[in-house]
Amino acid sequence: MIIIMKPNASQEAIAKITRTIQDSDLQVHLSKGHQVTIIGVVGDKSRLQGKNLEIADGVDKIVAVTESYKLANKKFHPDQSVIPVGTTTIGPDSLTIMAGPCAVENQEQMMETAFAVKKAGATFLRGGAYKPRTSPYSFQGLEETGLRYMKEAREATGLNVICEVTSQHAIESAVKYVDMLQIGARNMQNFELLKEAGKSGMPVLLKRGLSATIDEWLNAAEYIMSEGNEQVVLCERGIRTYETATRNTLDISAVPVLRSRTHLPVIVDPSHATGVRAYVAPLARAAVAAGADGLMIEVHPNPACALSDGPQSLTFDQFQELAGELRPYADLAGRKLG
Amino acid sequence: MIIIMKPNASQEAIAKITRTIQDSDLQVHLSKGHQVTIIGVVGDKSRLQGKNLEIADGVDKIVAVTESYKLANKKFHPDQSVIPVGTTTIGPDSLTIMAGPCAVENQEQMMETAFAVKKAGATFLRGGAYKPRTSPYSFQGLEETGLRYMKEAREATGLNVICEVTSQHAIESAVKYVDMLQIGARNMQNFELLKEAGKSGMPVLLKRGLSATIDEWLNAAEYIMSEGNEQVVLCERGIRTYETATRNTLDISAVPVLRSRTHLPVIVDPSHATGVRAYVAPLARAAVAAGADGLMIEVHPNPACALSDGPQSLTFDQFQELAGELRPYADLAGRKLG
Amino acid sequence: MIIIMKPNASQEAIAKITRTIQDSDLQVHLSKGHQVTIIGVVGDKSRLQGKNLEIADGVDKIVAVTESYKLANKKFHPDQSVIPVGTTTIGPDSLTIMAGPCAVENQEQMMETAFAVKKAGATFLRGGAYKPRTSPYSFQGLEETGLRYMKEAREATGLNVICEVTSQHAIESAVKYVDMLQIGARNMQNFELLKEAGKSGMPVLLKRGLSATIDEWLNAAEYIMSEGNEQVVLCERGIRTYETATRNTLDISAVPVLRSRTHLPVIVDPSHATGVRAYVAPLARAAVAAGADGLMIEVHPNPACALSDGPQSLTFDQFQELAGELRPYADLAGRKLG
Amino acid sequence: MIIIMKPNASQEAIAKITRTIQDSDLQVHLSKGHQVTIIGVVGDKSRLQGKNLEIADGVDKIVAVTESYKLANKKFHPDQSVIPVGTTTIGPDSLTIMAGPCAVENQEQMMETAFAVKKAGATFLRGGAYKPRTSPYSFQGLEETGLRYMKEAREATGLNVICEVTSQHAIESAVKYVDMLQIGARNMQNFELLKEAGKSGMPVLLKRGLSATIDEWLNAAEYIMSEGNEQVVLCERGIRTYETATRNTLDISAVPVLRSRTHLPVIVDPSHATGVRAYVAPLARAAVAAGADGLMIEVHPNPACALSDGPQSLTFDQFQELAGELRPYADLAGRKLG
Repeated sequence: MIIIMKPNASQEAIAKITRTIQDSDLQVHLSKGHQVTIIGVVGDKSRLQGKNLEIADGVDKIVAVTESYKLANKKFHPDQSVIPVGTTTIGPDSLTIMAGPCAVENQEQMMETAFAVKKAGATFLRGGAYKPRTSPYSFQGLEETGLRYMKEAREATGLNVICEVTSQHAIESAVKYVDMLQIGARNMQNFELLKEAGKSGMPVLLKRGLSATIDEWLNAAEYIMSEGNEQVVLCERGIRTYETATRNTLDISAVPVLRSRTHLPVIVDPSHATGVRAYVAPLARAAVAAGADGLMIEVHPNPACALSDGPQSLTFDQFQELAGELRPYADLAGRKLG
Repeated sequence: MIIIMKPNASQEAIAKITRTIQDSDLQVHLSKGHQVTIIGVVGDKSRLQGKNLEIADGVDKIVAVTESYKLANKKFHPDQSVIPVGTTTIGPDSLTIMAGPCAVENQEQMMETAFAVKKAGATFLRGGAYKPRTSPYSFQGLEETGLRYMKEAREATGLNVICEVTSQHAIESAVKYVDMLQIGARNMQNFELLKEAGKSGMPVLLKRGLSATIDEWLNAAEYIMSEGNEQVVLCERGIRTYETATRNTLDISAVPVLRSRTHLPVIVDPSHATGVRAYVAPLARAAVAAGADGLMIEVHPNPACALSDGPQSLTFDQFQELAGELRPYADLAGRKLG
Repeated sequence: MIIIMKPNASQEAIAKITRTIQDSDLQVHLSKGHQVTIIGVVGDKSRLQGKNLEIADGVDKIVAVTESYKLANKKFHPDQSVIPVGTTTIGPDSLTIMAGPCAVENQEQMMETAFAVKKAGATFLRGGAYKPRTSPYSFQGLEETGLRYMKEAREATGLNVICEVTSQHAIESAVKYVDMLQIGARNMQNFELLKEAGKSGMPVLLKRGLSATIDEWLNAAEYIMSEGNEQVVLCERGIRTYETATRNTLDISAVPVLRSRTHLPVIVDPSHATGVRAYVAPLARAAVAAGADGLMIEVHPNPACALSDGPQSLTFDQFQELAGELRPYADLAGRKLG
Repeated sequence: MIIIMKPNASQEAIAKITRTIQDSDLQVHLSKGHQVTIIGVVGDKSRLQGKNLEIADGVDKIVAVTESYKLANKKFHPDQSVIPVGTTTIGPDSLTIMAGPCAVENQEQMMETAFAVKKAGATFLRGGAYKPRTSPYSFQGLEETGLRYMKEAREATGLNVICEVTSQHAIESAVKYVDMLQIGARNMQNFELLKEAGKSGMPVLLKRGLSATIDEWLNAAEYIMSEGNEQVVLCERGIRTYETATRNTLDISAVPVLRSRTHLPVIVDPSHATGVRAYVAPLARAAVAAGADGLMIEVHPNPACALSDGPQSLTFDQFQELAGELRPYADLAGRKLG
């Protein structure tokens, strides 16, 4: 932690801050420049909680030197993690494809979709049984019935299944049916839910919040991991910007940035990022080329009749074609698809 | 709902969409221009759920004509609402001031603060017993003990008290101690929590999400209201932008925009919006001048030692001075302060 | 300047950077922490131009301690500036109101508007003779003819006049007709234009760029000032965010932030910020309450027929009413209006 | 153009608008719904300039049906354009690589770089002779001397050369030395400069503005094209968002979005988008996979000593390696590299 003083900070102000730091059993490094004095703090800065030096006399600003996330931090865990889920793993050697409809609608839909996406190369079936919708008047999901359809599709195909959870109650149900829990963008900083997901002991896919910085996202992962559950996979799904040509702006740079900051795997969801079917394939290819460990793609037997997010869903044929297109990109990245 | 066709849309495509609409018992108004055909849909558009006309052949884009929120919509409730809370009301005739620390830390802090803010003109004591913090290693709140301290301060001073809730469990506790529940920015689209807050029957202060549009915010209010609880007050607390000079960017325009779209009261939180003590007073004045129904201000007996958000908290003296400064602005707005 | 090393930075890496700094005749302050080493650089950091220590071995990040703008910086010029323009001054004692149409359309329009806004209390007539429009097919301005109409209105009323300039050629014309040049948002980082405006010796109103940070804005002011022209006034006119309820998001916090960073006056343009007539009055009041030194307001004899930005323009009656409303706010701020 | 009326709009209001439209020789299509009336306008909407129906009585909002850019619009020019520049072309069959330093510093630097990037597969040498820098105290470029060094490197290697222009004066010089003009992000809405670039008759690379929407960008291209110069190539270089992990956020979705809206070629600049050398290669691959027609990459003989943007520049070896990595991606895209 570095404290930058104002040009006109008095000797008394500097001495007072120095004393506060030393009284907290931390070391001080003073650096007096022509214009400003800089105070370096050496040691565990959590000892300064409740000291609020930002508003002490003479302080201009404070700069953090180390990140607040530890378990998710690559500096302390340099090797990339491999997360085992169900019958497979997510990590550097494979290109994991999770596919399925936005919302679980009925048994046939899930069964049909499961067989279609498995055939194309997906290893996960996705589906929403609890739907966080902007308006209370939109379809809200089949809940436990939906989870049951997912489990049946899992048993019929051997696919792993993943479902979003939106409450402690949903977690309690989901752990009985699925292989991996998903925390959605709107709940990325629902810290109570993160803790519950951590306690569940299940692998967790953590989507990036609508306007979360990469550091906030890694701190959210830390909430899950600090409950003793290190099976976390991150999912970039677009951030909110001023541009309205796509529903969100896919932050493709997040892939290499995360690679440099964390050991956790990263997958990309081009369907939610754009909201437009025609943009899914080019962005799926781009994600693989940028180094993503996997993709989450919306697929529906009949997008024109989907109860949620139809406009961004691929048909079975389109998905089959996309998977074929992705194989040489997976090869170039040294990853196994399917 | 208006469907704008592509310039080259075929007669068949137009006929097919027309049929789909009519088959849903809705009326069609066709408008053929030089370049494009426009299809107006008349009637209850929820009948088109699961039709996804966006991806039908020949469609360029779809434009919504009516808002998806109804109970919160000024079009259907033109008179401004007055929300009764505890011993007071929030609405057009008063300038409601909610003041207190970010986090409840101990009994003395709450009692002392309650007397100080009451003296200055506040009618609400605020305090956080459940703290959603970015890092799991930051102070997380005193929970029910904190609520108890708030209730004691309420009984000693006659102030109304408000506390953020972050889970169903927290709501169950809070209803026993406080006059108003607060849903924080990070939970604005935690729809399960919104529904529980709605069911509680308590007045709810709904903060705007970090990057929520005004329409999404009103839809979140609709979640609470559609549970039969219309006692909702909105709180603008800054949105996320590229500018880093303040923690968030206070969207002061939200005050008149909301006034034109909803009958619900609007208050402004300049403390969280800026994160900097020196900017709180000018923005509090600006909020009143823009027409806000109230303010939420962070006050702490000793900001330099606050466990959360000290840098943006006012001392008792600073708050007393601010309240004095605000009185003539309240007078100009025709509002009673305190 | 502070250099923060990576946790695993080698002694050689640290020694090499130390040498580079010392070879540039600067002093080094080393601070070794438990995890990281921090290197403080004391002296004129421009001596390190072309050294790019960011990419030297072992460096994690570099933090600037001092701002790159000097002439605009409050640290070196603590007293607030008063800028003389024509027959008046802009600064802490007055509330300057600049009013007029977005675009100069004809002689009558300017003359009529000049008398109307003067009567209400404006001291400046604004009007655009060179219009930067998003589409090349929109009205582009009357150019020198428009400037002539402005000058005639100036002579008839005694108002000061201000006009946007978009090229060196426009500056050459404008200096013959107006009292103050305006650099628009789209040209805030057109550095060639800033230098020309600086050389003109005329007072300059510098609008904030569509997505400029406050620091970039002050650096743009520095471009003008470093040509020897310190007569600069800043104008906040809304920034680009994800919110679409207003054309831009008025960053009202910029007023107190600028007050703490620069001695230059700040005015606010609520018309361009919102793009909606009904929001102009509440935001004008808010700007004065936040401490602005003035306002720029669009006024048109017949907004329904304005060739540019009619929807945000006030009629003469509306402007007269607004000016009346603002007087008590100016009084509270200790400023003279008109 | 569609006019959506308020629910309570009177018959008189509707009739008045209808008359205004018909008086402008346009056709009206009325569509009365249960709640709102919609008025479709058929014909050339430029006839309504100066009518400002947005503020007519009873109007809720107006929706544009057609884009304001015509020459750049794919709807009217469905085939993808191929732009001839110097000895090569930019378009669907090739992967054009433009490489070189941010700033021209001296003759040796340009000559050395030219040979190195040509050997790796670049067909363009880039270099800045006029540098738009945030601070007036940073290096501003060698101007005409820099252009001369570029031309010498062009003659020695046969590479095509491209240089940013920042003023009419710079254009006048540049046309004598280079094959293609570049308009930088900060000047994307410097409409005077766009017109001059249009008049020059030279091919123009138009970078996206810092916070320009895709529609504003295409309107900026329209400014150049409406001067009779259709040789325009677009360059995505990152947009401004709240995320600070990268200098800008590369909007990779812009590639497929532009492909659906315009016939003009699109290249991507990952160096300026991220500002970090380590992220350039993954994003360059992603851009090719997303369908870009080319890349602009910063390369410097000695990035540690570059006078501008060293931290994001590749060494010759790094560039050679990247070009090798890109070849199989170019093959997959059916494009010729080099």
